[in-house]
Amino acid sequence: MLMNDPGLWVARYQAVRDRTLALAAPLSAEDCGAQSMPDASPVKWHLAHTTWFFETFILEPMEPGFAPFHPAFRVLFNSYYNGVGDKHPRPQRGLLTRPSLDEVRLYRANVDARVATLIGSVRENAVRERLAALLTLGLQHEQQHQELILTDVKHLLAQSALWPAYLAQPLPAAAPAPALEWIACEGGIVIIGHEGDGFCFDNELPRHRQFVEPFALASRLVTNGEYLAFVEAGGYEQAALWLAEGWDWVCAQSLRRPVYWQQDEDGSWFEFTLGGLQPLDLQRPVTHVSLFEADAYAHWAGGRLPTEAEWEHAARLHGTAPGTPPRLPHPGEVSGEEGTLRQLFGHCWQWTSSSYGPYPGYRTATGAIGEYNGKFMVNQYVLRGSSCATPGGHTRASYRNFFPAGARWQFTGIRLAR
Amino acid sequence: MLMNDPGLWVARYQAVRDRTLALAAPLSAEDCGAQSMPDASPVKWHLAHTTWFFETFILEPMEPGFAPFHPAFRVLFNSYYNGVGDKHPRPQRGLLTRPSLDEVRLYRANVDARVATLIGSVRENAVRERLAALLTLGLQHEQQHQELILTDVKHLLAQSALWPAYLAQPLPAAAPAPALEWIACEGGIVIIGHEGDGFCFDNELPRHRQFVEPFALASRLVTNGEYLAFVEAGGYEQAALWLAEGWDWVCAQSLRRPVYWQQDEDGSWFEFTLGGLQPLDLQRPVTHVSLFEADAYAHWAGGRLPTEAEWEHAARLHGTAPGTPPRLPHPGEVSGEEGTLRQLFGHCWQWTSSSYGPYPGYRTATGAIGEYNGKFMVNQYVLRGSSCATPGGHTRASYRNFFPAGARWQFTGIRLAR
Amino acid sequence: MLMNDPGLWVARYQAVRDRTLALAAPLSAEDCGAQSMPDASPVKWHLAHTTWFFETFILEPMEPGFAPFHPAFRVLFNSYYNGVGDKHPRPQRGLLTRPSLDEVRLYRANVDARVATLIGSVRENAVRERLAALLTLGLQHEQQHQELILTDVKHLLAQSALWPAYLAQPLPAAAPAPALEWIACEGGIVIIGHEGDGFCFDNELPRHRQFVEPFALASRLVTNGEYLAFVEAGGYEQAALWLAEGWDWVCAQSLRRPVYWQQDEDGSWFEFTLGGLQPLDLQRPVTHVSLFEADAYAHWAGGRLPTEAEWEHAARLHGTAPGTPPRLPHPGEVSGEEGTLRQLFGHCWQWTSSSYGPYPGYRTATGAIGEYNGKFMVNQYVLRGSSCATPGGHTRASYRNFFPAGARWQFTGIRLAR
Amino acid sequence: MLMNDPGLWVARYQAVRDRTLALAAPLSAEDCGAQSMPDASPVKWHLAHTTWFFETFILEPMEPGFAPFHPAFRVLFNSYYNGVGDKHPRPQRGLLTRPSLDEVRLYRANVDARVATLIGSVRENAVRERLAALLTLGLQHEQQHQELILTDVKHLLAQSALWPAYLAQPLPAAAPAPALEWIACEGGIVIIGHEGDGFCFDNELPRHRQFVEPFALASRLVTNGEYLAFVEAGGYEQAALWLAEGWDWVCAQSLRRPVYWQQDEDGSWFEFTLGGLQPLDLQRPVTHVSLFEADAYAHWAGGRLPTEAEWEHAARLHGTAPGTPPRLPHPGEVSGEEGTLRQLFGHCWQWTSSSYGPYPGYRTATGAIGEYNGKFMVNQYVLRGSSCATPGGHTRASYRNFFPAGARWQFTGIRLAR
Repeated sequence: MLMNDPGLWVARYQAVRDRTLALAAPLSAEDCGAQSMPDASPVKWHLAHTTWFFETFILEPMEPGFAPFHPAFRVLFNSYYNGVGDKHPRPQRGLLTRPSLDEVRLYRANVDARVATLIGSVRENAVRERLAALLTLGLQHEQQHQELILTDVKHLLAQSALWPAYLAQPLPAAAPAPALEWIACEGGIVIIGHEGDGFCFDNELPRHRQFVEPFALASRLVTNGEYLAFVEAGGYEQAALWLAEGWDWVCAQSLRRPVYWQQDEDGSWFEFTLGGLQPLDLQRPVTHVSLFEADAYAHWAGGRLPTEAEWEHAARLHGTAPGTPPRLPHPGEVSGEEGTLRQLFGHCWQWTSSSYGPYPGYRTATGAIGEYNGKFMVNQYVLRGSSCATPGGHTRASYRNFFPAGARWQFTGIRLAR
Repeated sequence: MLMNDPGLWVARYQAVRDRTLALAAPLSAEDCGAQSMPDASPVKWHLAHTTWFFETFILEPMEPGFAPFHPAFRVLFNSYYNGVGDKHPRPQRGLLTRPSLDEVRLYRANVDARVATLIGSVRENAVRERLAALLTLGLQHEQQHQELILTDVKHLLAQSALWPAYLAQPLPAAAPAPALEWIACEGGIVIIGHEGDGFCFDNELPRHRQFVEPFALASRLVTNGEYLAFVEAGGYEQAALWLAEGWDWVCAQSLRRPVYWQQDEDGSWFEFTLGGLQPLDLQRPVTHVSLFEADAYAHWAGGRLPTEAEWEHAARLHGTAPGTPPRLPHPGEVSGEEGTLRQLFGHCWQWTSSSYGPYPGYRTATGAIGEYNGKFMVNQYVLRGSSCATPGGHTRASYRNFFPAGARWQFTGIRLAR
Repeated sequence: MLMNDPGLWVARYQAVRDRTLALAAPLSAEDCGAQSMPDASPVKWHLAHTTWFFETFILEPMEPGFAPFHPAFRVLFNSYYNGVGDKHPRPQRGLLTRPSLDEVRLYRANVDARVATLIGSVRENAVRERLAALLTLGLQHEQQHQELILTDVKHLLAQSALWPAYLAQPLPAAAPAPALEWIACEGGIVIIGHEGDGFCFDNELPRHRQFVEPFALASRLVTNGEYLAFVEAGGYEQAALWLAEGWDWVCAQSLRRPVYWQQDEDGSWFEFTLGGLQPLDLQRPVTHVSLFEADAYAHWAGGRLPTEAEWEHAARLHGTAPGTPPRLPHPGEVSGEEGTLRQLFGHCWQWTSSSYGPYPGYRTATGAIGEYNGKFMVNQYVLRGSSCATPGGHTRASYRNFFPAGARWQFTGIRLAR
Repeated sequence: MLMNDPGLWVARYQAVRDRTLALAAPLSAEDCGAQSMPDASPVKWHLAHTTWFFETFILEPMEPGFAPFHPAFRVLFNSYYNGVGDKHPRPQRGLLTRPSLDEVRLYRANVDARVATLIGSVRENAVRERLAALLTLGLQHEQQHQELILTDVKHLLAQSALWPAYLAQPLPAAAPAPALEWIACEGGIVIIGHEGDGFCFDNELPRHRQFVEPFALASRLVTNGEYLAFVEAGGYEQAALWLAEGWDWVCAQSLRRPVYWQQDEDGSWFEFTLGGLQPLDLQRPVTHVSLFEADAYAHWAGGRLPTEAEWEHAARLHGTAPGTPPRLPHPGEVSGEEGTLRQLFGHCWQWTSSSYGPYPGYRTATGAIGEYNGKFMVNQYVLRGSSCATPGGHTRASYRNFFPAGARWQFTGIRLAR
């Protein structure tokens, strides 16, 4: 990854940074400060933490005469990098009313200016290469947080009886979902993992072989209508459909439906969206379901969840370019999709049955940056594809997202296998 | 309580309402939105709830053609009145980023205007009397929340490693605390409870007799210096000094000092105040201690906590008018106190050994407003006096404040008895 | 308390000790080992702890050449005496399968023999007096644990779907409860606390004066029939009847009835007793209710709970000797009661509205034995009288029992005041 | 699986059943009744539940005129089979003092006699086959519980400061552990899963292909001495060595050593064993470590944990027959092992990095018996081999044991891979 044109890098950097601020633009300072649960973070914290990432991993080692913007920020905006030192307690990020949102914007501007200066001033090739690699990682990291900004703010807005919209914008009725087809794939030895010179995270490497039995994937995601049939058939009341831990989870919280679904007194179904409360659109993909729900649904429907190797292999064979993403992030909005295996990208992350673990020969980077992925490889499950909240151009067949089996606040959906 | 001069009532009403907004003035919308723990509430919530109180208990029954400012506010800003209907969950008040602080200010202005109109329009004497009684209760209620705004925001600001000040204002060194003297009181039958026509809460009535043995009260509050001696003598490490439940509380949280005290690496002591982190002033009253700490200290010092009857009786006999309250709420700041039994009002609420219960013949009001005091009469302890955060002119010998034995975020202090 | 006749003391000692073993006789070693909740203890632990009390507080300081029966027992069977050293964690008493029940019986026999020898060998008057005082305290302590053995084993047996009886013995239908009358008492200064030379606990002293307003007490306890009317009137569903903390307690556990009541499918009511599951006898006193339930019932019935001073004063004026206690401990069984104010003793402990606190001038004993009562004087409520499980001859008007407001596994009942 | 010789089946059945009782023989009824934590069960419960399994899955469908031994046992001794109906709450198994241990022994004898009669009376071949399959499953199930009896009772005995031994028997010094060698295995397509006609659990099927990269396994388990070096190097204090969830687990419980290790005041190390507290033998395999500890150790030692496919493949290639198991179950006791890849069986279960999931094409049985394995396939990790507590002749290369990543009370150890 060479840095032949520093100006281009500055522009690329600033475009990603600007988009993050644009995502926060519809929100008040109050909206940006609150934390709805320990798993989610305030928008302001996302804005500051992504800046901290550039300050800590690029400016601190590379900027001549580096001095931190504010000494306390090193602790306040560290997420989980033990190698960097102390951290503000995660469940209390919503209590950081200081620094204010305006001060965080100043922090962003300050770091942006210094990064731009640094990019323009590095001359030595080895340093340029190192800088390019860190910038790329930092921007990918920032794009991951762009998605979290949307999912976390959705969760926050859902806590209020006012059902406020992130964007007050109508959600048009989706086109009818096409009939579900089964796309058959031959088995054998397949090659898994990132290919080529483009960026990938360390967890997508090394590229390696796996043996896969013949299988088939559903041509599209499970729809709200299909999932509603499961709900109405008493799916949340039959222990036999659920993993044991999933059943305990259902019982402990008395669950009966996906997290953002509601039913009013006359039986009509609604879904809370980033556009506010909307009638449940039966043609759109079901979203915000946990692995437990996805697995129980698959069980009920006579299918199963794919492994991540199956998903990746089929996506390479049958996938097509994603369509145009929607203005209001919500699954089922993408237009212009083509191909046989649809809704791979831009709708919902798709649960797989694969536990998140290291590929054979996986090595983490040295230093604190090595904490990025490897240390989370236990008790999490891999999701493939991308969602309506994933930044455009940030999708690839080898990408491995991961969440615990009970997570529901991400745009997660179901693609069946058999 | 007659309402002869409606204009005077409007002015009185608006003065209290304005002071509440003035207390929030040094704070940003972000500061006003956060909730540091379930026991504390966001400032914005206090601003809205006090308004809800007037809307619900005055406008709703008395305003012709009443319509709520916003139907959802009935639920969002109900604190604990089951008789009024549902309530937003208390631990999630910090998630109400909507309505915004600006909208809450509009809510206040709207209700204020309507209350003023109502005051000016009531003609019938019985209704006027009822209105005057409710207005008085609502304003007392609002003043109680003024104090909570200060204690809750102090707790919030203390969560940040930035140690921000509510008011960036120096805290001058206090004058030396006078020597502690014991003020002896004869025992016998004493009269307890509110006297006269002025306002009091229902829990201060009926006025009644109690028998009290001869006792003595300390002439002033326990100072930081005296309490520091207890800390340094290992007071938090000796089970024998503590109530059993207090000892469990100390051990479970590994407590070693009052909640806002800190010791830096070279052994110097600091105290977090509304003016930020300050050197611990040994001459000022110790504050932010729980009943458990107050009781253990008294045990160690060879004294005990007074009963509420002892406190009230002595305050009537020996108390003097409180001095001028400080600009920056902090104990030890009052100037101009006189008399033998000092620091009764305007410094710290003083723990008594009396459990909070009903006076003989106590009756609650009918309807939801009857939930104000009576239903809390279990597992709480009475505090007497008033604190540096209590609104001026809001102090009386019969006033009964109450908190659970482990509460530390109020301005609570210790007056010894024997 | 002189010890003129050592043989009499040995006999008195052994009689109490034997009765403890007799209470355990209907139980297997397995029954004696289990702990149903942290508040309750295994019967085996009671057998050992009461022995530890004599070993620690009498043999250790007074026996020449004292050596402990087993060094580890000092820790294993210490209940809450911090002055004695470490304690086995209370919630894990049921995991002490060693020592066995047989070994604990040997421990008892060994300590009994040594205590008898000690009683016979002490010559000096001051030592005799000290020994007599400690023996008396130890035997009172053991009798308190006799009651706990019954309540704790009842709670244990209630955990099993087999509903086993402690004593398989029929519970005859009770005689009709007499009509409830109100016994009026004049107010004024009354004398409270233990009188005379007989034994009392330190918390019954000093004897002192209190001022009491005129009041009336119900002539008998509230019956199951009366309480059932409260249940059937929706008493557990009306927030307005409950203390706020009581209402939270009801909601958190979805409570609808007293802890040992059950209703079968055709609506018939049953009560779990030490004689197994029995039809609910409407004439007997309601028992196993918490302070929250007692207070809500009183509220609903238009009365209130008495203060402990009212109870004690009325019991002195109008109480009569208790009748003959039942073989199967259950309220409503006593025969031969006389007088106007009935069921004071031998049926149910009676909740008062008085928080458990020190009498004026109260002093604890020095040393670990001083931990007996004083350190529990917070967040507990006083119960007066005695229950069907209280050892005979162990009742007096000044006796102060105490439990937290939510406790239900003791034989607790309701006497109304007004 | 034909049942040509019913007498042989009866004898086989009874031998397994007798061994279970023999394992309980050194224990008192009290020892058999207690439950040390929700994950462990009382020995008495194991004795009853294994009997319930035969009664429910064999006698109930196959015995003419079946009537349950006791109707309540269906609920009391159901472990997790939702298809069978209600269950007694798992954390309260230690409260079932009734039925007594003697009654449970009668229950066992009754069911044994009826099973023997049934075996002798079945004539039809299809029924015989079904019976043989269920008997085999029931006996395998019982043998799994034999191991749990030992691990659960070890955990129980470890709760007492008396450190009682299950078997008072000396643990001889182990022979020096041989030098660790790396056994290299070629990669490629390997066949995984159970082969042949012998019994296996459904989770060992279908036999299928996997692709494996070249790898090497350690020739023996990690020893106490090697693990002690990790402890003394501060292994439990370096976040960088741990999975993120493992580090949270270490911090939350302040862990510094394996669960049964202790260090006395002069620094000597001891280990609690089924033979009581013993000096830590540095030559024996470390045991009772969680996956988190195993992974952190491997990280520190420059290795990694094997996958289950690697383990199974290597065990087939290089494994040898297990030696003679020890009388006192403890790792490092087996004599007579041969081969290059040692300590595969009979010492410690060996953590793999593989999450427990279904093999391709896995199908559960229909009915409640299908709940045996499949529903646990989430958030658990596979262990391979067998332990010192596993019944003899119950070991095979394809066997898949599984526990959550934090489990420490099983005989779990570490074999490194690279």
